[in-house]
Amino acid sequence: MSRNKHRLVGHNSKKAGLPPGSLVHVGEIKTSEPLATLIEYGHDGYRETCFTSLEQGRGFQPQHPNLWLNIHGLHNIPLLEEVGRRFGLHPLVLEDILNTGQRPKVDVYDGYSYIVARLIHFDNDRRCLSSEQISIVLGRNFVLTFQEKPTGTFTELRERLKVGGTQVASSGPDYLVYSLLDKVIDRYFKVVEDIGEEIELLEDEVSVKAQTSVLTRIHSLRQEMLGLKRALWPMREVLNTLQRDEPDLFSKETQLYLRDVYDHTIHLIESLETLRDLIAGLLDIFMSAQGHRLNLEMRFLTVITTIFMPLTLISSIYGMNFEFMPELHWRWGYFGVLALMAFLAAAMGIFFWRKKWLR
Amino acid sequence: MSRNKHRLVGHNSKKAGLPPGSLVHVGEIKTSEPLATLIEYGHDGYRETCFTSLEQGRGFQPQHPNLWLNIHGLHNIPLLEEVGRRFGLHPLVLEDILNTGQRPKVDVYDGYSYIVARLIHFDNDRRCLSSEQISIVLGRNFVLTFQEKPTGTFTELRERLKVGGTQVASSGPDYLVYSLLDKVIDRYFKVVEDIGEEIELLEDEVSVKAQTSVLTRIHSLRQEMLGLKRALWPMREVLNTLQRDEPDLFSKETQLYLRDVYDHTIHLIESLETLRDLIAGLLDIFMSAQGHRLNLEMRFLTVITTIFMPLTLISSIYGMNFEFMPELHWRWGYFGVLALMAFLAAAMGIFFWRKKWLR
Amino acid sequence: MSRNKHRLVGHNSKKAGLPPGSLVHVGEIKTSEPLATLIEYGHDGYRETCFTSLEQGRGFQPQHPNLWLNIHGLHNIPLLEEVGRRFGLHPLVLEDILNTGQRPKVDVYDGYSYIVARLIHFDNDRRCLSSEQISIVLGRNFVLTFQEKPTGTFTELRERLKVGGTQVASSGPDYLVYSLLDKVIDRYFKVVEDIGEEIELLEDEVSVKAQTSVLTRIHSLRQEMLGLKRALWPMREVLNTLQRDEPDLFSKETQLYLRDVYDHTIHLIESLETLRDLIAGLLDIFMSAQGHRLNLEMRFLTVITTIFMPLTLISSIYGMNFEFMPELHWRWGYFGVLALMAFLAAAMGIFFWRKKWLR
Amino acid sequence: MSRNKHRLVGHNSKKAGLPPGSLVHVGEIKTSEPLATLIEYGHDGYRETCFTSLEQGRGFQPQHPNLWLNIHGLHNIPLLEEVGRRFGLHPLVLEDILNTGQRPKVDVYDGYSYIVARLIHFDNDRRCLSSEQISIVLGRNFVLTFQEKPTGTFTELRERLKVGGTQVASSGPDYLVYSLLDKVIDRYFKVVEDIGEEIELLEDEVSVKAQTSVLTRIHSLRQEMLGLKRALWPMREVLNTLQRDEPDLFSKETQLYLRDVYDHTIHLIESLETLRDLIAGLLDIFMSAQGHRLNLEMRFLTVITTIFMPLTLISSIYGMNFEFMPELHWRWGYFGVLALMAFLAAAMGIFFWRKKWLR
Amino acid sequence: MSRNKHRLVGHNSKKAGLPPGSLVHVGEIKTSEPLATLIEYGHDGYRETCFTSLEQGRGFQPQHPNLWLNIHGLHNIPLLEEVGRRFGLHPLVLEDILNTGQRPKVDVYDGYSYIVARLIHFDNDRRCLSSEQISIVLGRNFVLTFQEKPTGTFTELRERLKVGGTQVASSGPDYLVYSLLDKVIDRYFKVVEDIGEEIELLEDEVSVKAQTSVLTRIHSLRQEMLGLKRALWPMREVLNTLQRDEPDLFSKETQLYLRDVYDHTIHLIESLETLRDLIAGLLDIFMSAQGHRLNLEMRFLTVITTIFMPLTLISSIYGMNFEFMPELHWRWGYFGVLALMAFLAAAMGIFFWRKKWLR
Repeated sequence: MSRNKHRLVGHNSKKAGLPPGSLVHVGEIKTSEPLATLIEYGHDGYRETCFTSLEQGRGFQPQHPNLWLNIHGLHNIPLLEEVGRRFGLHPLVLEDILNTGQRPKVDVYDGYSYIVARLIHFDNDRRCLSSEQISIVLGRNFVLTFQEKPTGTFTELRERLKVGGTQVASSGPDYLVYSLLDKVIDRYFKVVEDIGEEIELLEDEVSVKAQTSVLTRIHSLRQEMLGLKRALWPMREVLNTLQRDEPDLFSKETQLYLRDVYDHTIHLIESLETLRDLIAGLLDIFMSAQGHRLNLEMRFLTVITTIFMPLTLISSIYGMNFEFMPELHWRWGYFGVLALMAFLAAAMGIFFWRKKWLR
Repeated sequence: MSRNKHRLVGHNSKKAGLPPGSLVHVGEIKTSEPLATLIEYGHDGYRETCFTSLEQGRGFQPQHPNLWLNIHGLHNIPLLEEVGRRFGLHPLVLEDILNTGQRPKVDVYDGYSYIVARLIHFDNDRRCLSSEQISIVLGRNFVLTFQEKPTGTFTELRERLKVGGTQVASSGPDYLVYSLLDKVIDRYFKVVEDIGEEIELLEDEVSVKAQTSVLTRIHSLRQEMLGLKRALWPMREVLNTLQRDEPDLFSKETQLYLRDVYDHTIHLIESLETLRDLIAGLLDIFMSAQGHRLNLEMRFLTVITTIFMPLTLISSIYGMNFEFMPELHWRWGYFGVLALMAFLAAAMGIFFWRKKWLR
Repeated sequence: MSRNKHRLVGHNSKKAGLPPGSLVHVGEIKTSEPLATLIEYGHDGYRETCFTSLEQGRGFQPQHPNLWLNIHGLHNIPLLEEVGRRFGLHPLVLEDILNTGQRPKVDVYDGYSYIVARLIHFDNDRRCLSSEQISIVLGRNFVLTFQEKPTGTFTELRERLKVGGTQVASSGPDYLVYSLLDKVIDRYFKVVEDIGEEIELLEDEVSVKAQTSVLTRIHSLRQEMLGLKRALWPMREVLNTLQRDEPDLFSKETQLYLRDVYDHTIHLIESLETLRDLIAGLLDIFMSAQGHRLNLEMRFLTVITTIFMPLTLISSIYGMNFEFMPELHWRWGYFGVLALMAFLAAAMGIFFWRKKWLR
Repeated sequence: MSRNKHRLVGHNSKKAGLPPGSLVHVGEIKTSEPLATLIEYGHDGYRETCFTSLEQGRGFQPQHPNLWLNIHGLHNIPLLEEVGRRFGLHPLVLEDILNTGQRPKVDVYDGYSYIVARLIHFDNDRRCLSSEQISIVLGRNFVLTFQEKPTGTFTELRERLKVGGTQVASSGPDYLVYSLLDKVIDRYFKVVEDIGEEIELLEDEVSVKAQTSVLTRIHSLRQEMLGLKRALWPMREVLNTLQRDEPDLFSKETQLYLRDVYDHTIHLIESLETLRDLIAGLLDIFMSAQGHRLNLEMRFLTVITTIFMPLTLISSIYGMNFEFMPELHWRWGYFGVLALMAFLAAAMGIFFWRKKWLR
Repeated sequence: MSRNKHRLVGHNSKKAGLPPGSLVHVGEIKTSEPLATLIEYGHDGYRETCFTSLEQGRGFQPQHPNLWLNIHGLHNIPLLEEVGRRFGLHPLVLEDILNTGQRPKVDVYDGYSYIVARLIHFDNDRRCLSSEQISIVLGRNFVLTFQEKPTGTFTELRERLKVGGTQVASSGPDYLVYSLLDKVIDRYFKVVEDIGEEIELLEDEVSVKAQTSVLTRIHSLRQEMLGLKRALWPMREVLNTLQRDEPDLFSKETQLYLRDVYDHTIHLIESLETLRDLIAGLLDIFMSAQGHRLNLEMRFLTVITTIFMPLTLISSIYGMNFEFMPELHWRWGYFGVLALMAFLAAAMGIFFWRKKWLR
């Protein structure tokens, strides 16, 4: 949970005090080798080049019209600065790429747009929702993507580019960006589905056992929903902006596809709202089940008291020391009283059994 | 409930990983024979043709100005592709037709509009709300409708077309689309009415028996409301868009009728809001009734304790072994004490009866 | 309550399945004689004619510039059709007039506007809020009003028309429509005031007796509020539309008056919001009072137990059968113990009395 | 409270049934002498004239450019009609002046604007919030103000006018209206501050004593907040309208000042929202404190039962009449048992004391 | 807390009654020496001058293009008046500078803009959130800042100016204003992070100990959130206005940076919303934990009663004085009964232990 929280607010604690534009990687430092993959594609073919050092890229000459440069790991500040210089990125863009606690947004600059998306990841065992920032820069003929660590989300997309003849291979970089965003949104469906199933499980449990542990699970579900909401709402704005206000970077055809992803996002947000209402309902059931348990215990106590008090009174009466108590001298007095008590107890037992007061 | 949930979020779990535009039917596979019904109508007459195979339709020539092609069952992908090719549908439209978890929407393409609506179905016995996607494509002189299974909702409309002379028969395809949407919305009224009646029943029950089962019913009512809301809210947008922003596909006259359906949708949404508030009220009554029951049981316990404790004390006093206890030697001591106890018990009984503490 | 509910959602259950435009009266059938009253008025005089049959109106020739045709009872479908033909009403208007569960709205047609308002009626004894649809058609020189039954709300207005010289008599039909709407809104003030008084009564009661009956009254108050809200919110839209968007049917002078009614509606809506918040407060007090009562009963039980348990212990101790218990042989042992018990009981009684634990 | 309620909804109960435009004073009838004060001011001087009868004003000739006519008490209908005639006020304006339950608003008429504001008054002892309507009419060179009774709020303003050389004296009537509104808003700050202090007091009390009386105070606080909100929200609209949409009646310079008052109103509204949230928090604490008290009493009962039940059992055991009970014949048996009991009681007492179960 | 409250509403209690434009310092009087620091900077160098008296500044001649005048302490009214005269500030600006309870806003005047921001300060020990007003005036070539007391927030910024060559030193005053606002917003991140950690701590505590002290902490957290929200929401408006509507005072480049700060503010506001929801969840857990504790105590009481009542009954039975009670004469009767009791107690003890009713 602590990690979740850190992400929630620790936007630039490391950076506070530095002048704007200083490049410091604020995310958690990863030890994996930073890797830049350059993919060139177009009608005329496909080429993939991997860079492990900055020098490799110096004299590079592209052969195909469209470029996709994917960078995993953000510690290699000089690499990023070089990329920024080559593609003419504004210092603020580089800063936002490194500062991986950004909320999804789209910033329009001269000649390119900068898109921040969040890739959701849900660890079902630890019940821990984490999200990773993906920075996308879309230019006339290039796409840059920046991730903290490889997640394999886009492997399949690269395959499709390589095959050729697919729509993504024969379209421009705008369609590639659409495909990336589509992949990102697809991941959310899985997570929302998981949460939906968890809620269903809880629905069965909550009325049976009203323990605080159930409540804790409800609370953590709520936290996950809040995390999702924080990632999805701005994503909706991003897609709305891209679809409506960016007519020069996206072709008319690609805008139709963006509208489709936008619809998916709306769908997800509505699902979240529904789940949220269901969770609220769970809470009501929980509280009622807790109250019900109190009632049951109260009832049990009442039954015990009601059965034993009269019996004790009777035996107490015949323990009095009056001189003239005729029953005491009867031959079957003692057993008669015992029988009376047994009868009383049985009668009350049956009465409460019928009333369903004995669980 | 699981089915309900699946529909809630399982929008394209099957599709995740496929490139956009791949045609896969995501709904539940139906075994019924796919069936395409082609209705031609106009001032000059009516003709209905049923297709059971793709080949049948190859050389088909229409005779009447307006076409309505209705397709039940969505597994016959080649059929759909053929239809898409004939009527020039965008791949995204075909994808959305097959992907039957769409939320209601209207997408405008060149020359035609694509409308998604949801046909509601409420199974009163299993208390299960399900909804089915209906895809409508409205072109200049044709209407295409796609459904997962036949529901008979539009049978009566077909009859009216066949009869001729009715407004729908003598109007264009835009009026036909209005009639379809009108039918779809009509179904909601029935469901909302059913829910309203269920709430009324619960209102009578809830204060009498405050059992968790009642709460479960309230919770499932709330789930149904959420399902309805999810279907109705976007439907409102759809109708608003059609009525205001589509002046070229809908005639001025038909727009008046669309405004009417739009009003019905608003009416339904307001009814939902009201029902929602009533359910919230039910919950309050339930919680209070549960608390009331706790109070009653507490009170009963108090009465028992209050009546028996003094009696036991008295009998316990006369069970003491003091040498000098004059009452013990009185002739009528024992019976006097019994009488005293009976009197005390009766007095307290009457007292609590008057106080209405004995139910 | 059932009637209320029916109205809530039963918008066109009777009509489902009929083609749009079919004229069926959906409200509850009234047995009173349908009655059409035609009032002509203007600077040059006033004439009132009552029609009991359709034939009477065939050859009718108006004498004064402004017409007001008022129709009570909606079963006489031929009459309505005749009126529709004479004044050129669209079939949808006639349908909406008969379908008396409409929400307030204003529909603009060529040459006339169709206004739906709801006349509120609050039966204080049965605590039942009902509302009746009033349809108003405003044309260049005529006003048509349609009601299910005579309510006498407009009698006084007719008097003022008859007298002549009043503003309504010397103004056009737009001012007449304003006067009608003003009357309709005036009725709401009365109802809101009644609800306000009921809330005040409940405020005094709720902390005294925390019975479920009070909660039921709160719940029914809430239902009434919901009914009012459902009628008032769209009324606000209607008045806003009339005041702003209808410059050709309403004179500039009349628009000032409409602004005034609009202000009243806003005032009413804000009062409703306030009442709603007060009711929410009542609920909190109720829940707290219920919890308070539980506390009181708990406390009473505690007092009983605390007083009697030590006494019983003492008497039980002197009931032990040890051989050497010196107190048992004391001359005043018994009375001493009795005195001790009395003292203990009194001391605890005073203690709890001071602590205000004995109510 | 009743007065508060009356004001809440009793907008025109007296008026219902009268034709629009009838002048009836709807507020509570005051017995104080109606008084019209006419202030003329400008660069060239200041003159104040008091009118006690209508005749005095007939032949009046103004000497200075700006007029401010202030009228206290609204029973003198002929006076108001005369004023209306002189300054060309619309009948609706006069009606609204008399009908003192108006919500704040601004109505623009040809040549003048009519502003309704509400002067708040908080009686700290009776904890009763009342508000009085102030009607302001701003024309080219005159300001008219109408109040039900003299409140002294504007005395200081009049002094400043009299002195001359102050900004208000050397500016036009628009600045005077600004000054009036500024005074009106200033009064709200005081009231909001009072409520804030009351909440602080309650915060200290609420966790100590969870009595229903505290809840009643919370409820009445909420009522006061609702009253303030009802007065402030429309006031914000009024100031926004004046500042933005009225460029011809207010000079550019005065509009800067109006923006300032507007900011104050926003400030007040946000304070109200904050107070509202604090009150909601108080309620939670109250409910929790009530539950805590229940827990405490439960615990006390448990302690009593736990201590006495074993003691009673022991004494009851030695009250059994078995022949062979060796302890009974021991010399120190009795005192040993007493000691055992004392030890048990002490041990349990210490145990519960350590557990902090004995308060 | 009292200080917090004062700030909440005590906007101009001191000022009430004074004419608008009167300069009175409304904040808490500070005893520290008022200090004006004048910084001149530009491409050509940097100069810093400190003024301790008004006279010092009379004959001052600036040497560099950009001026930044920072004033700590606001009691020196003549100084402020002098500054106002020199830079042509409107009286309302001076008034707002002194009146330190303003909400963040931006007011546009001819030739300069007046910005109010609030510097947040969170005292972690006393758990007390305070905020200080910072007034910023941005002109063509000057920036004026006004603070109540030195906080050191801008020291580092001054260093950067002094160094030269940094972006802030080589840009105009608009960039300086951006840097100031960036610093102000940075402070909020720290506070939001602190609150997030406090919530995490409470999450662990709340289910363990359900004491009212925890609730008080939740309540004070809520108060802090409200304070933050009150400061942040208007800040968002301010940044939105600056970024969008002020094209002449801010260069295109600086507007990109302002957009960045704006994004941070949105981020903060969303974090606040999330924290708010988490706090609501805490409250639910608290209430449930309290209910759980009640259940546990109830259960304990029930166990005690259930174990001791049968034992007491048994011993009471053998205390009866019947003549013919065979068991009484058995050799091992007494020990048998004791054994029976021990067995019963043990059996019930084990039963309840297995049921986990004994904690």
